[in-house]
Amino acid sequence: MTDTSREYAAALDADDPLASLRDAFVRDDPELIYLDGNSLGRLPKTTAERIASVVRDEWGADLIRSWSHWADVPYRVGDLIGETLLGAAGGQVIVSDSTTVNLYKLAVAALDARRGRNVIVTDDDNFPTDRYVLEGLAAQRGLELRVLHTDIDEGLDLGALREAVGPDTALVSLSHVAYRSGALLDLAAVTEIVHEAGALVLWDLCHSAGSVPVRLDASGADLAVGCTYKYLNGGPGSPAFLYVRKELQDLRQPIWGWFGQRDQFAMGPAYDPAPGIGRFLVGTPPITAIAAVEEGVRLLAEAGIGRLRAKGQALTGYLIDLAAVWLPDLALATPADPKRRGSHVALRHPEAWRMAQAMIADRVIPDYRTPDRLRLGPAPISTSFTEVWDGLDRLRTIVADRAYERFSSEPARVT
Amino acid sequence: MTDTSREYAAALDADDPLASLRDAFVRDDPELIYLDGNSLGRLPKTTAERIASVVRDEWGADLIRSWSHWADVPYRVGDLIGETLLGAAGGQVIVSDSTTVNLYKLAVAALDARRGRNVIVTDDDNFPTDRYVLEGLAAQRGLELRVLHTDIDEGLDLGALREAVGPDTALVSLSHVAYRSGALLDLAAVTEIVHEAGALVLWDLCHSAGSVPVRLDASGADLAVGCTYKYLNGGPGSPAFLYVRKELQDLRQPIWGWFGQRDQFAMGPAYDPAPGIGRFLVGTPPITAIAAVEEGVRLLAEAGIGRLRAKGQALTGYLIDLAAVWLPDLALATPADPKRRGSHVALRHPEAWRMAQAMIADRVIPDYRTPDRLRLGPAPISTSFTEVWDGLDRLRTIVADRAYERFSSEPARVT
Repeated sequence: MTDTSREYAAALDADDPLASLRDAFVRDDPELIYLDGNSLGRLPKTTAERIASVVRDEWGADLIRSWSHWADVPYRVGDLIGETLLGAAGGQVIVSDSTTVNLYKLAVAALDARRGRNVIVTDDDNFPTDRYVLEGLAAQRGLELRVLHTDIDEGLDLGALREAVGPDTALVSLSHVAYRSGALLDLAAVTEIVHEAGALVLWDLCHSAGSVPVRLDASGADLAVGCTYKYLNGGPGSPAFLYVRKELQDLRQPIWGWFGQRDQFAMGPAYDPAPGIGRFLVGTPPITAIAAVEEGVRLLAEAGIGRLRAKGQALTGYLIDLAAVWLPDLALATPADPKRRGSHVALRHPEAWRMAQAMIADRVIPDYRTPDRLRLGPAPISTSFTEVWDGLDRLRTIVADRAYERFSSEPARVT
Repeated sequence: MTDTSREYAAALDADDPLASLRDAFVRDDPELIYLDGNSLGRLPKTTAERIASVVRDEWGADLIRSWSHWADVPYRVGDLIGETLLGAAGGQVIVSDSTTVNLYKLAVAALDARRGRNVIVTDDDNFPTDRYVLEGLAAQRGLELRVLHTDIDEGLDLGALREAVGPDTALVSLSHVAYRSGALLDLAAVTEIVHEAGALVLWDLCHSAGSVPVRLDASGADLAVGCTYKYLNGGPGSPAFLYVRKELQDLRQPIWGWFGQRDQFAMGPAYDPAPGIGRFLVGTPPITAIAAVEEGVRLLAEAGIGRLRAKGQALTGYLIDLAAVWLPDLALATPADPKRRGSHVALRHPEAWRMAQAMIADRVIPDYRTPDRLRLGPAPISTSFTEVWDGLDRLRTIVADRAYERFSSEPARVT
């Protein structure tokens, strides 16, 4: 029996060991309920000052001389992400480019390492940019892109994956947590299936990094990429990260740039890739933006990924329980088993688009995902149980009053 | 007869129509002479506040809702750069990724458009990242990279280029202004030679954008890339720009990402590139970083590229004149004709590395470039004639006193 009282939410908050970390984030409008932390994380209070310091003291005052320490920044922040959130020992994660560019770089590296195999495997529930990158590579290289059909409420079926891979498979690329449903894949189990076929696996960690423990090293995963603007709170379009397992760091990525060059300032005549993870850098790293990422990740490190995971499961479980009681017309479109989902929840309804607009008008920020999903992402580090209660409470009023009917229906672009 | 008095420098400053714009930049240490504005431009005073506003008001307060206007930012700032600095009508320039990634994207697009031709032409004085990208593409696609030998003091010889291109040539990629010597190529003349061979030309504008008028449209150039952290004052590792001539916007770049997709949020099953310049975007654009670029470019737009060019020629001419009198042991390694150089000057000396270290210790910031170049870049918008005088005056003392001998010789990495 779900206790739907607001007092119960307050009691959950009182027991929350991460509650005080909510104060580490800017919260201009105390009435705003933010349930889209898995799309763009909140602004940490220290980030504005950190950015100002990099801009004023490092760029403004020290100018070009700052490159003597800036050169380490992509490595240092990569290690911080890897060691605290991804279960990756040092020297395997670096901050660089966008998620999409990193996916491209690592997918090419993997395909080159498996020449003679002509199949790339992914699923139709993978994030669009992942599917497009793989589609492009398959077209450019004359390979087959094998797109598995996935139930978008439940996530990829491992039996179907096992059937789909074989001696023809070069690369399998999947999202660890599905962007719509939040379905969480078993990293080690998938990796084992892929490795049994002799292929390489490339993970998209965008929706898992910072919300679920990733355990890259322990799982045997080969390659991974992820973004820093969701749970890592790095800011809009902040630079992405990539992981290459130590044993695979002799792989070559295709964009040969001066920051991937051994002995960079010799500016020699031929490209000679740096040893280690540095060869996966390309151009000049965005220093101020990476510094902002470091601030966000420090907070997650302070929270601890274990406690973030526990709170994420509790928050999403609570949200699912309230929705079951208050919103019977909205179907759960996320695995009910907390071990099988990340930190966001999808609810299905034909009027999801208009409901999202009505929520925003009522200062509850959800996300909408095609075709008929309300996506609710209460970021564990910055969201309280009371906020989940208030958000769902406002939504149930919107649904009960049919207040969403005064909003326009789905925009033409998503029909 | 060169007037070497400091009073003459002050008189030149008094006549400088851009003098007041120097106050638009942060200048914490009034004694610091900054002659590396072509490596990392100074910090505009408005940039810190603009960044703070984007972070605090757009990210912190409005959160994900800001994407309704953020989506335009790469286009708007691209147009500002194109229209005010590059002679490019709207809809042909966009801010995206790093210079290196953009070079890769456009080089692949060009090579795909010239399938059947198997030669890429560049020169051995091109910037390392350009040479490495092209070397990588040649290796990956089984093409010949034809590397012309260029006199690094004088720049590319157009006769040699004419000899090198022919019906086998797919792509010619060159730097508009050479990174060491500052030698300036004739955009229209080179483009004509390349087009006569039926090839496409891809320009690197890193050292010309913001310092010389580029006239992309008028020259008939096909493709171009450039960085924003030099003369555009965008900050360390700020995002780059790319240009694709309107008539060539049906070209395809190889990294198929969700920001290059038509009808992006339909998240459809297949990649369908956006019409126009938007298809050359890849992943989520770095919003805060692009806003910082906009601040820098606004100042250049206010100055006007014609006045920036005139001042750049005057500053470098003055520097060359003083060096001829005061530093007879340092050879000019830049074209003496002001029409044939950009806004930086190289001086050659076997002890250039140690001289650079001695200058930095004396608060004059030059750059060093292998093998034996002092590179001096007095950015027209932020540098006075008196600063050039002071910088050269300190250098002549260092040389006269052999003060550089107490600094270590070239680091192992550049031997």
